[in-house]
Amino acid sequence: MENNEDCVFDLSDLQFALQVLGGKWKLYILTSLYFGKKRFKELERDVLGISPKMLIKELKDLEALGIVNRQTFNTVPITVEYSLTEEGLTLKPVLDHMSEWAGGFKQNANSKMPT
Amino acid sequence: MENNEDCVFDLSDLQFALQVLGGKWKLYILTSLYFGKKRFKELERDVLGISPKMLIKELKDLEALGIVNRQTFNTVPITVEYSLTEEGLTLKPVLDHMSEWAGGFKQNANSKMPT
Repeated sequence: MENNEDCVFDLSDLQFALQVLGGKWKLYILTSLYFGKKRFKELERDVLGISPKMLIKELKDLEALGIVNRQTFNTVPITVEYSLTEEGLTLKPVLDHMSEWAGGFKQNANSKMPT
Repeated sequence: MENNEDCVFDLSDLQFALQVLGGKWKLYILTSLYFGKKRFKELERDVLGISPKMLIKELKDLEALGIVNRQTFNTVPITVEYSLTEEGLTLKPVLDHMSEWAGGFKQNANSKMPT
């Protein structure tokens, strides 16, 4: 992908963002965690269609990146909670803009609907 | 996913955005097209690892949503060019914020690197 002169963003930054946020599941996991701490089963329920094995892998990736925090509690059985780190919360503007984009897009699509 | 009171964005809008932008390939395709019109082979080259069959499907989805425009030229053989529609270009703030997020994230990660 070539860099576009009138483009403000840095292609390597965008590609890094795509690596972190792209792929089938990460955005859904981050969105669920954006709404608060979650246990594994809650995440599984929120992220429709993800297998436990894949959820474990994606959470490990996000944890290694410092975006997700994994906290265990000495209950019987042990309880594990996932949450966004400070870094993870810096994603808010991205999610905000995605939501804003979608709201405008839907409104525009509806206005084109034949009445 | 429950709605978070102090949250500004609309969950259903975000879920719509995730449907459009989520998944393994769409963000990469949109990013490539953001940098200008592309032919099929150029897109295939930009979106590493995508199969022709999958690229055709994703382009059809994006075209049906009104985000991508497909233009054919009466050359021999026929030439097909893909580009973002006006609607598709409204994604710019999302890509900008993703890039901005990634730039800040990488800077922060580097600052934590042991020197």
